[in-house]
Amino acid sequence: MLVSNDDGVLAPGIKALTQAMATMADVLTVGPDRNCSGASNSLTLTNPLRINKLDNGYISVSGTPTDCVHLAIRELCPQEPSIVVSGINAGANMGDDVLYSGTVAAAMEGRFLGLPAIAISLVGKQLQHYDTAAHWALKLVKGLLEHPLERDQILNVNVPDIPFEQIKGIKVTHLGARHKAEGLVRTQDPSGKEIFWLGPPGQQQDSEEDTDFNAVANGYVSITPLTVDLTAYKQLPTLNEWTKKL
Amino acid sequence: MLVSNDDGVLAPGIKALTQAMATMADVLTVGPDRNCSGASNSLTLTNPLRINKLDNGYISVSGTPTDCVHLAIRELCPQEPSIVVSGINAGANMGDDVLYSGTVAAAMEGRFLGLPAIAISLVGKQLQHYDTAAHWALKLVKGLLEHPLERDQILNVNVPDIPFEQIKGIKVTHLGARHKAEGLVRTQDPSGKEIFWLGPPGQQQDSEEDTDFNAVANGYVSITPLTVDLTAYKQLPTLNEWTKKL
Amino acid sequence: MLVSNDDGVLAPGIKALTQAMATMADVLTVGPDRNCSGASNSLTLTNPLRINKLDNGYISVSGTPTDCVHLAIRELCPQEPSIVVSGINAGANMGDDVLYSGTVAAAMEGRFLGLPAIAISLVGKQLQHYDTAAHWALKLVKGLLEHPLERDQILNVNVPDIPFEQIKGIKVTHLGARHKAEGLVRTQDPSGKEIFWLGPPGQQQDSEEDTDFNAVANGYVSITPLTVDLTAYKQLPTLNEWTKKL
Amino acid sequence: MLVSNDDGVLAPGIKALTQAMATMADVLTVGPDRNCSGASNSLTLTNPLRINKLDNGYISVSGTPTDCVHLAIRELCPQEPSIVVSGINAGANMGDDVLYSGTVAAAMEGRFLGLPAIAISLVGKQLQHYDTAAHWALKLVKGLLEHPLERDQILNVNVPDIPFEQIKGIKVTHLGARHKAEGLVRTQDPSGKEIFWLGPPGQQQDSEEDTDFNAVANGYVSITPLTVDLTAYKQLPTLNEWTKKL
Repeated sequence: MLVSNDDGVLAPGIKALTQAMATMADVLTVGPDRNCSGASNSLTLTNPLRINKLDNGYISVSGTPTDCVHLAIRELCPQEPSIVVSGINAGANMGDDVLYSGTVAAAMEGRFLGLPAIAISLVGKQLQHYDTAAHWALKLVKGLLEHPLERDQILNVNVPDIPFEQIKGIKVTHLGARHKAEGLVRTQDPSGKEIFWLGPPGQQQDSEEDTDFNAVANGYVSITPLTVDLTAYKQLPTLNEWTKKL
Repeated sequence: MLVSNDDGVLAPGIKALTQAMATMADVLTVGPDRNCSGASNSLTLTNPLRINKLDNGYISVSGTPTDCVHLAIRELCPQEPSIVVSGINAGANMGDDVLYSGTVAAAMEGRFLGLPAIAISLVGKQLQHYDTAAHWALKLVKGLLEHPLERDQILNVNVPDIPFEQIKGIKVTHLGARHKAEGLVRTQDPSGKEIFWLGPPGQQQDSEEDTDFNAVANGYVSITPLTVDLTAYKQLPTLNEWTKKL
Repeated sequence: MLVSNDDGVLAPGIKALTQAMATMADVLTVGPDRNCSGASNSLTLTNPLRINKLDNGYISVSGTPTDCVHLAIRELCPQEPSIVVSGINAGANMGDDVLYSGTVAAAMEGRFLGLPAIAISLVGKQLQHYDTAAHWALKLVKGLLEHPLERDQILNVNVPDIPFEQIKGIKVTHLGARHKAEGLVRTQDPSGKEIFWLGPPGQQQDSEEDTDFNAVANGYVSITPLTVDLTAYKQLPTLNEWTKKL
Repeated sequence: MLVSNDDGVLAPGIKALTQAMATMADVLTVGPDRNCSGASNSLTLTNPLRINKLDNGYISVSGTPTDCVHLAIRELCPQEPSIVVSGINAGANMGDDVLYSGTVAAAMEGRFLGLPAIAISLVGKQLQHYDTAAHWALKLVKGLLEHPLERDQILNVNVPDIPFEQIKGIKVTHLGARHKAEGLVRTQDPSGKEIFWLGPPGQQQDSEEDTDFNAVANGYVSITPLTVDLTAYKQLPTLNEWTKKL
């Protein structure tokens, strides 16, 4: 079993996840050497990767979450892992934001290389309940191994940051939509030069019952199946029509 | 109109695209200060962004393609652009690889911020025919403005690197699949330390008639509608069933 | 003749310097692709370097000023240059700060590779008189070629940002001392996480007549010979004494 | 007492050094989050710094060795440390190479901020005897606190990688000279693009008896006093003469 994340190999979430997974299988933990939040599916192409084996047996990689999973499956795992588990992310990966997520990307990369894959995030601000997410990760990994998804699909799981016994249950959801992000912060560095910070994400826009936002807000674990095939199939006929005339 | 890319603001493709677009509208060109191939939808969250206005009027940003489009729409464009055009990428963005593409990500970011968006790539090795791609970009932008897509969709266009008059036409396609990438290159740097390079992409796997790979290989411009909503809707019922029992 | 800098190959200072040097010799201009202020003598060891030839003939390198000069002399120059000229830096390189300077480091690297070398900086805030610095650069390069320094020495030149005819003359100086830097700025990024910015440099401490600070403040061009041999020779006897007893 | 290094906060050398120093004083250990070999005195000016407190109490900084020492003294140390000890570097810092060294730079930064400072390196290939270097570090720190250097000086120490009892003694040395570096490696990345690696350092050139190269080669601990004032004082008169005529 392969565990990875995007918060970096020293983050608390990857430790909680590794410990939970180790109760059911051999685990190799491979994560980025720095916090890669917002890394999406980015790959390191212009520079080589370097690895560093830490005292606790985890492997640190000078790259992105996608690099980590690719490198681990191709070179570092003694045998092909049964599943790729990514997380536990410190914060939500819901709605439109999943496209920016390194946690989700790590799971996707496992899928591209032929393995079942799941991404787990803990939703809240001052996170306290990694064990809740770890518990659910364990349950869902077992379920997923029994009920495989299609070859282009992964599971994206968001768990509210509350005690395990307060979780109301599971909801299978689709991705909600956010309002546009609230804009950039335009400011100056201490030497007076203009800089821009990407602003905080927008408020959730789409909070109808079946969305991930709604499930988590109401104390449920949200489970969203994602596809790695981005083709918008329903648009093909219309597009065929007008492009024919170009 | 906003033009961006992932090969960097000094690349030949963004110049060809800017010049073509300038024949139909005012253009602002904003690109990354370095080659960001493989950047996917990554965001710069831990550091601020800085901009630099170049002699030719283009704006260089110390960030990713997604950063560029976000910053341009929110801060740099004098008014909201009518469309985001990303490219012309030096090389294919087809099949599974679109998930890693900064070119496609730049278009997606435009879509998230409410604008029509299109990504253009030139497919070949020693690229010579940016003008072919620029021509088709112009045609397709005009078409797209007349025939808007759904709110969660963009166009992904791949053009073979051949003279304009040799293009056989357009094919509307879905994303093909690759074989798994051919693996990493494990080697040493000159001081003898172990390094890994991400290997070249795998051979195309899925070359049936409706794929992007097939269209381009046969001399057609491939047009694939992509969605930014990754939910695998068809999987929802099955997932509902087994997770209910956890 | 080789021209380099640390503000990046697109900065105004390197252009002014290149144009001035081109009046007396063939010039190759090689600079970093990004602003490398504060780069000191840093080398890129864990990643490879890439080059990009720009439309104006300058060469952009994905590395530090030291990388640029090393790469230029070893690989890019058609024949060994007669001298390395670094600058024109946008801002002072005086006193203790020369140790952090990428501009000075570029010159030092030329010296390590056996060439005469000179670093030029323009001192002021809203810089307007690059031509003043370019004029003096030309004079001093000619002088330096006639009056070679020792094999471990370079010239560090600081020019006040005033019109050429207002310069009062040259002063040969030693490096002044600053007060300790005014401290860090401890603040938060927009998502509330703690960050630290290195603060502005301290006020000059040592403004006696022979320092670089004093010369420039009084309208003179400051010329300081620097050595690349850091050994504190005068300390050797004392040190010999007490370490003998360990 | 402040301990830092340039190999990164997880490197074995900083651990050995911290443990040795902890036998005589309270120690705060602050190092870069990545290997910064070759960082010289570089400063992080365009981005902010972030810190991360590790399980073992060490503090990891997203910056250079100079950043670490500056940040530690200004913000992280509960009170001003009595001395800055940098190392134990994995490999030599001798001769011309000290100008590129992050280990030496960390010590220099301590000096700029008014503290005694010492840099320690272990010289060899497959390093085994960090304890030898740690022993000597302890001896020399004690000696240095009793015999302060001038305000612009630090100690640079290189220890051969042999068992403690095989060390022949101490030599006070000056920096030797190297032959020019053996040149760059020009090669291709796996996708066929041209890259350059900085080559291995040149052979030592200057092996007369008083150099650091000579001392270490003969089984001695080499101690070189370095100055942070780069002024080439002996050149001032000559320079005064010819520049007067410009």
